Amino acid sequence: MASKGKKESNRPGEFELIARLAKFGAASELQGSETVLTGIGDDAAVVSTFSDQMLLTTDAIVDGVHFRSADERWFDVGWKCAVSNISDIAAMGGTPDHALVTLGVPPGASVETYEDFYAGMNDAFKNFGGRIVGGDVVSSATMFVNLALTGHPSVGPDGTTRTLTRDEAKLGDMVCVTGPLGSSAGGLEVLLSGLTNPSGQILIDRHFRPTPRVALGNALVACGVRCAMDISDGLIGDLEKIAKSSNVGITIDIPNIPLASELIFMVGTSAVDLALGGGEDYELAFTAPELIVNSLPFEVRNQISVIGAVTSDKQDAGSVRVLDKDGGNYEPIRKGWDHLNG
Amino acid sequence: MASKGKKESNRPGEFELIARLAKFGAASELQGSETVLTGIGDDAAVVSTFSDQMLLTTDAIVDGVHFRSADERWFDVGWKCAVSNISDIAAMGGTPDHALVTLGVPPGASVETYEDFYAGMNDAFKNFGGRIVGGDVVSSATMFVNLALTGHPSVGPDGTTRTLTRDEAKLGDMVCVTGPLGSSAGGLEVLLSGLTNPSGQILIDRHFRPTPRVALGNALVACGVRCAMDISDGLIGDLEKIAKSSNVGITIDIPNIPLASELIFMVGTSAVDLALGGGEDYELAFTAPELIVNSLPFEVRNQISVIGAVTSDKQDAGSVRVLDKDGGNYEPIRKGWDHLNG
Repeated sequence: MASKGKKESNRPGEFELIARLAKFGAASELQGSETVLTGIGDDAAVVSTFSDQMLLTTDAIVDGVHFRSADERWFDVGWKCAVSNISDIAAMGGTPDHALVTLGVPPGASVETYEDFYAGMNDAFKNFGGRIVGGDVVSSATMFVNLALTGHPSVGPDGTTRTLTRDEAKLGDMVCVTGPLGSSAGGLEVLLSGLTNPSGQILIDRHFRPTPRVALGNALVACGVRCAMDISDGLIGDLEKIAKSSNVGITIDIPNIPLASELIFMVGTSAVDLALGGGEDYELAFTAPELIVNSLPFEVRNQISVIGAVTSDKQDAGSVRVLDKDGGNYEPIRKGWDHLNG
Repeated sequence: MASKGKKESNRPGEFELIARLAKFGAASELQGSETVLTGIGDDAAVVSTFSDQMLLTTDAIVDGVHFRSADERWFDVGWKCAVSNISDIAAMGGTPDHALVTLGVPPGASVETYEDFYAGMNDAFKNFGGRIVGGDVVSSATMFVNLALTGHPSVGPDGTTRTLTRDEAKLGDMVCVTGPLGSSAGGLEVLLSGLTNPSGQILIDRHFRPTPRVALGNALVACGVRCAMDISDGLIGDLEKIAKSSNVGITIDIPNIPLASELIFMVGTSAVDLALGGGEDYELAFTAPELIVNSLPFEVRNQISVIGAVTSDKQDAGSVRVLDKDGGNYEPIRKGWDHLNG
């Protein structure tokens, strides 16, 4: 649709780069390869389906917005790109299956950059499920990566297929999170400050290598939980999405929010605001009746914190109240990231 | 992973733009909505699967590479973006099902731009199958759109699930195309030349509104065809992909290549080179034994041209020979687009 005349260039062309990158897809064939009938190199991938229902999600990262190419932390960027998508599947209580990767390649990009990036993505898939089965490579002035990921849902306690959605919060539900929160945002602050010490390094690692809660999401479905999402844009902003979708109000208590000791050590009382508003923790927030929360197996119960309750389904619908240790209203400094105006 | 501090802005933020764009997904609900269990607005879409096998493809378009934002032909850009993905499903003999759309939104973008763009995409989906069930919106200095599309395969003459792949060309097969070819590239040349007349307009329309061959692909599978791909990068370059994947040689005869009368009228003898090397026709190229080609129903046979044969599986494997009307070797001017160096 635009001028596409060929130019001389020493960098690898599309077909060569695709051929070189195809091997990274092939490298993850050890895992689940029996589900891939036709992989990279045809018009579309052909894969087996696992269930009569399928989960579909997509997330893109852009140079200068979600990562900085100048940092050259390609393995980490690849890991996080995969995790942000895997986390969406986890937030539905599902298991990741098949990924399509689109590379927007800027002038002068090197194959080595993408080798490291793919290694990071594949490491995340190896740890949490899923594999790359196809993609696209396009020229772009701005470097970007888009990942589209399929998954399959889990089975609830009644033996039927169930997903965790945002519109199932009910009056009286407990509000819970896997945790701790704020560590990723804390890691970014530590990184930008230039300070280094063991606590700071733990936070930086949480920033660059977040963990999607796939197994926990699966376990929640198995126990009868119906309402969840992942915390990618900040606790308050994300809980507001549940409150709006479910047409309920939510109240949370600051003293109950799980904080990493390293975060408190590094940033002091700012830890609360990082936990309330910081993004990219990729923990899960969910609501469920007390009976179900109390029935969670010890190894699940041990990883979650009850931070509040679904308090009203009439007034305050769609809103989140934050209470301080004295029960007074707490006004958070920031409510979450808006990716367009960020 | 990068600085994401909030800035003041008058343009719609991510959440507002997502909310406004969600209705365009909802607008296509008339069609196939019973397969979408959870649509736009949760962590992932939940959809029904149609078969024990699934097709997956993705294609991105970038401002200045695949379209020019300055042209403001947003409906056309949306149409073509959808068609390039639908065509990949058609090339596997399948039917499009569910799409995820990622928008890379540059500073100052308007909602109206995306309304027109979505209208074009949804019109293509309405005509050829598939619907938008989710996506992502990110900030990007360079405007881009990524589309990921699922589909389901068709059933072959023996009642089993079959796909059209590139590695099934066999010695003695006829080489066929749906046609005519070169019209999209001709339309671009007409457009760039600034000429306008009825023939030129037909070519320009072929450039902006190509037709994916979904029904034809389905029909080929039903008749026992096994080997096909879509012609998106130019006939010779794409046939070389079949030749390489199948480890065969292919010979085609120029006089048999279908050309639109409008193309011959507008560009004369250059028509052949546009047909051989021009991209984005989104017609299908396939190979099949003569017995199968001759058994195609009249309405299918009527839409295809036999342009050559699979000639050798030993020497010349992976290569395409082009013969002129006297049987001599024809050296094409260009062999196809390379999207990275284009």
